[in-house]
Amino acid sequence: MAEDGKPRHRVVIVGGGFGGMLAARGLGKSACDITLIDRRNFHLFQPLLYQVATGALSPANIAAPLRSIVRRQANTRVILGEVSGFDLTAKTVERRGGEPIPFDTLILATGATHTYFGHDEWASLAPGLKTIEDATEIRRRVLSAFERAEQETDPAIRARLLTFVIVGGGPTGVEMAGAIRELAGQTMRYDFRAIDPCMARIVIVEGQSRVLGGFHESLSRKAQRSLDKLGIELHLNSHVTAITADHVEYRPEGGTSPPITIPTETVVWAAGVRGSILGKMIAQAAGGVEVDKAGRVAVQPNCTIGTRSDVFVIGDLACYKTPEGKMLPGVAPVAMQQGQYVARVVAARVAGDTTDLGPFKYWDKGSMATIGRAKAVAETGGIRISGLLAWLAWLFIHILYLAQFENRVLVLWQWMFNYFTRNRAARLITGEMALRPNDPNRGLPPGATVVKA
Amino acid sequence: MAEDGKPRHRVVIVGGGFGGMLAARGLGKSACDITLIDRRNFHLFQPLLYQVATGALSPANIAAPLRSIVRRQANTRVILGEVSGFDLTAKTVERRGGEPIPFDTLILATGATHTYFGHDEWASLAPGLKTIEDATEIRRRVLSAFERAEQETDPAIRARLLTFVIVGGGPTGVEMAGAIRELAGQTMRYDFRAIDPCMARIVIVEGQSRVLGGFHESLSRKAQRSLDKLGIELHLNSHVTAITADHVEYRPEGGTSPPITIPTETVVWAAGVRGSILGKMIAQAAGGVEVDKAGRVAVQPNCTIGTRSDVFVIGDLACYKTPEGKMLPGVAPVAMQQGQYVARVVAARVAGDTTDLGPFKYWDKGSMATIGRAKAVAETGGIRISGLLAWLAWLFIHILYLAQFENRVLVLWQWMFNYFTRNRAARLITGEMALRPNDPNRGLPPGATVVKA
Repeated sequence: MAEDGKPRHRVVIVGGGFGGMLAARGLGKSACDITLIDRRNFHLFQPLLYQVATGALSPANIAAPLRSIVRRQANTRVILGEVSGFDLTAKTVERRGGEPIPFDTLILATGATHTYFGHDEWASLAPGLKTIEDATEIRRRVLSAFERAEQETDPAIRARLLTFVIVGGGPTGVEMAGAIRELAGQTMRYDFRAIDPCMARIVIVEGQSRVLGGFHESLSRKAQRSLDKLGIELHLNSHVTAITADHVEYRPEGGTSPPITIPTETVVWAAGVRGSILGKMIAQAAGGVEVDKAGRVAVQPNCTIGTRSDVFVIGDLACYKTPEGKMLPGVAPVAMQQGQYVARVVAARVAGDTTDLGPFKYWDKGSMATIGRAKAVAETGGIRISGLLAWLAWLFIHILYLAQFENRVLVLWQWMFNYFTRNRAARLITGEMALRPNDPNRGLPPGATVVKA
Repeated sequence: MAEDGKPRHRVVIVGGGFGGMLAARGLGKSACDITLIDRRNFHLFQPLLYQVATGALSPANIAAPLRSIVRRQANTRVILGEVSGFDLTAKTVERRGGEPIPFDTLILATGATHTYFGHDEWASLAPGLKTIEDATEIRRRVLSAFERAEQETDPAIRARLLTFVIVGGGPTGVEMAGAIRELAGQTMRYDFRAIDPCMARIVIVEGQSRVLGGFHESLSRKAQRSLDKLGIELHLNSHVTAITADHVEYRPEGGTSPPITIPTETVVWAAGVRGSILGKMIAQAAGGVEVDKAGRVAVQPNCTIGTRSDVFVIGDLACYKTPEGKMLPGVAPVAMQQGQYVARVVAARVAGDTTDLGPFKYWDKGSMATIGRAKAVAETGGIRISGLLAWLAWLFIHILYLAQFENRVLVLWQWMFNYFTRNRAARLITGEMALRPNDPNRGLPPGATVVKA
């Protein structure tokens, strides 16, 4: 790691998501030795996971091997491994099954996972949408529900199998609901003989008073109208109180009546997220930095933590408060801009440049969500658009993003092709469970059973 | 199931592979009610599974949902289910977790799986290449081996990790070896910092005296020269005697010396296949029809079995002997032509047409195998070609095949695009095991461990 006898500055980046990857790319031409460590060998474009979960895209369409992304950066090595802790005195990152990795600068960008608000027993009943495995598991459940409904003769069970409940009305929940409607009502419309997939009941249960809580109210209203047109049921101000193998219970806020039951066997969790466990570890190692209740680490205006100028936390794992006291949302653009910013800070330090880069500033290019094909809502600055125009903007921005990596032509083409043809050719039921098609208890935790009514 | 009061002829097809699917399509316009039952919801283009195993194609590129394929056939229903037996007196197909399905004509086309010649303990150490799950598991093992080699400092272990052994030198083995060489030497050439993937050692162990035993000898020689140019080691007349977590042992035929050891942690099984267990069941149910030692059911010249004119067995599960006493090979064209033939026989019977269609006749359009990009061998009739021309023929014929199903444009485009760009974007390490990147024992059977030398 030395060149001309002079030791090079060692940067360790943990996590190859939006933040970590942009940090690595930003340091590609700097005089640092970069180690990018991740549990997975690919970067994942999480915002499109719901397209995998509904068979429109293949996992490889929204994932790029990390090694490809930094292939041309001779100063960057990629390590597939799992970080287990930090020693900020020795300045090393500890990992399972390998030597600790020494660093001069550490950038932690391990993101968030979903949380069930204390109901961990719901995890196997209502998978979230954070990994490739989550997406293919949800795809298996959704497709299997239609398959089982086709063979079911009891009308009550058939209706239950054709009911899909999405917990959470944020962008993921809304997009997922729209995609299931499209899958059922268009793609698979003529695929069955005993059932009409158009009859699928799709329900969103949302705790707040509107969907897309992060957006302007007028856009929430437009989104709600779109959901209504698609025949998607929306229960606002409603909290899920139980999830079992054959139903979901929710209770309207402030109500005193007993909870309302929705018979269903397919539930998707699109509600809470919680910072990676490494957030707590780094906060402790740095001498007790504050961690909020969603597991996010409080960061300084320059994304360092506590008094450690050599340790950065970025992306979904960071709790970044603007000077106005507003917390930045856990979305890809924040992570990407923080990654780029931190790369600039580190590169300047290494180059001996003492110009003050100032605090991190988030440039909000706007938010957008899509609800079925050719319907979306978007806001940027003071401008809010919806409908086809918003959808085209959504498409354009996603393509732009995907195009910035290696293999841009390939990804671009595949993705556009998959998206513009209405086909969802990736409707594969795979995995071990796929081989037990008639087992009503597959996918349930041991001991749980589906009770036939 | 009745029209104008007249009961329709019920055809049950078990298996949606090449044979079953062509039979279903061939009966699409007949006056039958067809039930196609399969454990999976998709038809799989097995000959290209090795492309998935080496990250060139995604599973969805070589799979088509069965429901899509027969969507326009109003007389055909698809059932996702597992057949557990047959009652040829009651004329029903029994299945797990569902009512028996009555038939007037039964077409059994459940194909073959791999066999380890009595060494079932090798199954987890040397996965075969028959299912999507097999392919993604092999992909995980191959890619993980490179990842672990990148982190390994012991030269002996590193060499072992970079050694890939393929058992069997038929088309699958040869194609797999060529694809691993391409993956290592081209796709991932610049991806690593500590290892040079070009140094990967790729070995084929074949029991016969030449590779591609089903081809003409001159083509085997050409294939062997291609393998040699690619630096792929070939051990002919050699039988594998042991497979463990860290080595393979083989013994040259007739030799008396101790077995030769190849240190490796990645073994692919491309040797024996055995007919599906349903073959034995139908043979017994039909009153003791002969089953050969590879589990294939002896069929009559018209693909029926024993004295049952209403039960057909086709494809890899059938042992069909030509009038010259030659057994037809277990390849896709045989299965497809048998499926088409049986559909014609059944359609004629149902239509009351008494014209004798004669026995099934296989039209051998030729065989081909590809060894790396732009290299292949092919023979058709008396013509044998090799090199680029054979490769173009291989490509053309595969595209033609894929193009005959629904979604032809989509599949065609995706596939051509994936294939012509040298990129293997689907290099994803996925599955539960992917989350334990540093565990040297992952993928091994319980109790087995990798002993560090």
